[in-house]
Amino acid sequence: MPFQSANFAPLTPLDFLNRSRVVFRNRPAVVYGETTWTYGEFADRCQALAGALHRAGVEPGDRVAALLPNVPAMLEAHFGVPMTGALLVAINTRLSPGEVSYILDHSGAKVLVVDTELAAGVRTAVESFSGLVVHVSDPAAEDAWVPPGPGYEEFLAGGAGTEAAFRVEDEATPISINYTSGTTGNPKGVVYSHRGAALNALGEIIETGLSTASVYLWTLPMFHCNGWCFPWAVTAVGATHVCLRRFDPAEAYRLIERWGVTHLCGAPTVLRMFLAARPTPEYRFARPVHIVTAAAPPSPTLIAQVEDMGARLTHVYGLTEVYGPHTVCAWHPEWDALPLEERARLKARQGVAYTHAAFLRVVDENMQDVPADGQTLGEVVMRGNNVMLGYYRQPEATAEAFRGGWFHSGDLAVVHPDGYIELKDRKKDIIISGGENISTIEVENTLYKHPAVAECAVVGVPDEKWGEVPKAFVTLKPGATATAEELRAFCRERLAHFKCPKHFEFCELPKTSTGKIRKNVLRQQEWSGAEDRIRG
Amino acid sequence: MPFQSANFAPLTPLDFLNRSRVVFRNRPAVVYGETTWTYGEFADRCQALAGALHRAGVEPGDRVAALLPNVPAMLEAHFGVPMTGALLVAINTRLSPGEVSYILDHSGAKVLVVDTELAAGVRTAVESFSGLVVHVSDPAAEDAWVPPGPGYEEFLAGGAGTEAAFRVEDEATPISINYTSGTTGNPKGVVYSHRGAALNALGEIIETGLSTASVYLWTLPMFHCNGWCFPWAVTAVGATHVCLRRFDPAEAYRLIERWGVTHLCGAPTVLRMFLAARPTPEYRFARPVHIVTAAAPPSPTLIAQVEDMGARLTHVYGLTEVYGPHTVCAWHPEWDALPLEERARLKARQGVAYTHAAFLRVVDENMQDVPADGQTLGEVVMRGNNVMLGYYRQPEATAEAFRGGWFHSGDLAVVHPDGYIELKDRKKDIIISGGENISTIEVENTLYKHPAVAECAVVGVPDEKWGEVPKAFVTLKPGATATAEELRAFCRERLAHFKCPKHFEFCELPKTSTGKIRKNVLRQQEWSGAEDRIRG
Repeated sequence: MPFQSANFAPLTPLDFLNRSRVVFRNRPAVVYGETTWTYGEFADRCQALAGALHRAGVEPGDRVAALLPNVPAMLEAHFGVPMTGALLVAINTRLSPGEVSYILDHSGAKVLVVDTELAAGVRTAVESFSGLVVHVSDPAAEDAWVPPGPGYEEFLAGGAGTEAAFRVEDEATPISINYTSGTTGNPKGVVYSHRGAALNALGEIIETGLSTASVYLWTLPMFHCNGWCFPWAVTAVGATHVCLRRFDPAEAYRLIERWGVTHLCGAPTVLRMFLAARPTPEYRFARPVHIVTAAAPPSPTLIAQVEDMGARLTHVYGLTEVYGPHTVCAWHPEWDALPLEERARLKARQGVAYTHAAFLRVVDENMQDVPADGQTLGEVVMRGNNVMLGYYRQPEATAEAFRGGWFHSGDLAVVHPDGYIELKDRKKDIIISGGENISTIEVENTLYKHPAVAECAVVGVPDEKWGEVPKAFVTLKPGATATAEELRAFCRERLAHFKCPKHFEFCELPKTSTGKIRKNVLRQQEWSGAEDRIRG
Repeated sequence: MPFQSANFAPLTPLDFLNRSRVVFRNRPAVVYGETTWTYGEFADRCQALAGALHRAGVEPGDRVAALLPNVPAMLEAHFGVPMTGALLVAINTRLSPGEVSYILDHSGAKVLVVDTELAAGVRTAVESFSGLVVHVSDPAAEDAWVPPGPGYEEFLAGGAGTEAAFRVEDEATPISINYTSGTTGNPKGVVYSHRGAALNALGEIIETGLSTASVYLWTLPMFHCNGWCFPWAVTAVGATHVCLRRFDPAEAYRLIERWGVTHLCGAPTVLRMFLAARPTPEYRFARPVHIVTAAAPPSPTLIAQVEDMGARLTHVYGLTEVYGPHTVCAWHPEWDALPLEERARLKARQGVAYTHAAFLRVVDENMQDVPADGQTLGEVVMRGNNVMLGYYRQPEATAEAFRGGWFHSGDLAVVHPDGYIELKDRKKDIIISGGENISTIEVENTLYKHPAVAECAVVGVPDEKWGEVPKAFVTLKPGATATAEELRAFCRERLAHFKCPKHFEFCELPKTSTGKIRKNVLRQQEWSGAEDRIRG
């Protein structure tokens, strides 16, 4: 009995909007400033965007780029662009003009939707773009530079009332391309499918308990893995999106109170800024807020602060290649009764695959599972419906990433006896010293506990005896002082001696335009000449 | 970019158990009496069942029948049978021996797993079955008759430690057959797929807010649409199943307290029994209980009683052909503030498609949508991932049900201006009197408000002037009295006059073995001879 039209509908987030457009037509879909758009209005605007793009010559399979903060137009792009059958290319707003040009060129975008404040910063990229430029002028920001071409509202007006003819027939139809901001080489274009986007949205609903009564604050950039698929997830349940042009802790508190926010996502650095700005030491949220965090394990202090404010923290982990989170530290209700330190230790782990994702392994070089002993390092590999279709126009890179039928994350982890994984390092960052693995993350986390350390990066440097040894590059906090001896002693109290940095250097750290520390640059300068001899 | 092994995994509920087996290995999966099985143990037992079935010769595509109450073995069958690639045929426990024989024969089951108390009631069917009979002996029940063949635990022991070789390759792989208990003709075998079962399980999690902390009480029979896919949904989130041999209100209260039940499903009749047994007039649940109800709109009284006990009621609607519920009266948080009568009016509606289901229409004879005016009747048609693969070995019946590419429910409904549907009648039951539609459900619901009415059925009977007119068949409550004149006057106070029954008959109502009133028998006796003349 094969599927037929009565019992098969391709999974697509577009059907989520089609449903909410009817069911929740008068409920608030999007809030920005003091303006609210209902689901009826929001869907009409997405439809108008699709119509306007179609009239501008956008066809199924074309690419439409968006360089926008978390404003309503960015949400509309997440539906309006795929409604034409085109792929959304949401660009990181912190990239340089050269990087933006590379992405516009590599993706072959036909249209660029750009914010007039952001446009000024990448003017050369916008000016050299050969396609149509549509500019979004935000009353809450400055029109720093208005590029030639139609304004967004004018453009939408031209598409109002048109009916998009595109229908998803194949679940593998691509819906978006997200360019990774790697620390080396050109960014790679990660392609998402309609099926993957829909299932990930359902997965986020399930793991974070989103419902019609939820209110989601947009602290996570939508250009980042399509905002972990939350544009589609929040819409699917008819909850409310609260847009936010840029993260500002005081404004976030105001919006949480003003709109009764129940959910938000952010890296621990964002959460730390947020918690540091707690209005009063006794302040508690009026409604419980569910906070999803990734990118670094939440510390016991952070967990305690969050809980003390009446919020709940979920720790997830993923990469652009897996639509954002692939794993969640799935919480057992029984663990709520444990002491804080113990809860923090459990929650620091990246955990297990999402319910809908299901396929996660930690393997050795021969793709054999490492033992679940909490000690043996292996590479995290993922498979299933939330792995990207591939890298856009890079079949070799795709095949390399998918060798053995699994996506290779490049992250090293251990598996604890209960099956939960814990990340230890990037594969290319791990230090092998005298045959022993040293997790640079572990050493950095130790250094971060020192009150004088603002930022640090640990890399392996050549050593005649041990092959390589850890070296720490440290930026101290303004006005703070600490010597190499002091930091070394600090580490030796907390780490096995072979893990402690043998060398220290106090300096500014090299970073990408998005703020990632470029360990490869540090390594390169240390290994120049020595690399072939020892590492080779 | 077509899917490949790294980024495509066929959707199947079996992966839910594979995940919970690891992630929730020490959490309670199944509770029965005072015994608890963890997810590790539950998964091992399912695996052992699969191994034993495989050793008994069960191959992918074969059928395995189960005639069991809501005991642990029935839950295990929902995983163990599909783990072999076979289809589970869960048989209604209230069927007659002849009906059971028909299903065993039509499905071509190789194995029958049967409860020793239930076996006595269908002994001739079990005795004439040519396949292997495995009997489940329940310490909580009587071994009324032990059929020849292995006991369930002995059978499982033979399969322990074996590895099932079957892997779902195609999402359209059938997972189960559920025989409908129609009021006419032989039951039809509704075939479910792995994809449909997995998506429906995710849909139930989303609509009912199931989470790892949930505890589900098995008041809904698992033989009914595979328990609306809750065996798979509850397992997916690592929540706890509380088994229940037969519905008994006092026992249900005890279990809710004993295990902290958060979710249960049941028809309003079951809920009414349950509420009538409220331990004290002030009794409230210690934890909020989410109750999902279907089959008849919940009355304002029922809603008030449920809410007064600290529970929340969700109204859903569906059929065996759509894996149980297809629609939900999706609740707007704003409606909580409305007066009870208004909430009841809104909640009485069957609503809109589930988030994952999405395709629902109410159409006229030409498959055109009826206007959303709350008045125009049309047939409810459904499409999408939660529509059955088809009727087992009945291609003509399947094609007829799927005409126009939609599943035809045979239910008549109106669409309200807000897009929510409300059922009015079965297509074959509606009365057309002088060109006006009369919903027999509406007339029956009015009669049910009369304190003397225990049961009633309204059908159209021939009438020279109007074509047909309503006739009510009524069973009075023991000891109660009411005359036809009294009931007619009661109706005329509450309904338009043309809707009021012109004739009354006091009698026992003809029913199927599952308790459905056979209106077709009543109609047949009234129309015998007249049918061709007036209806033809």
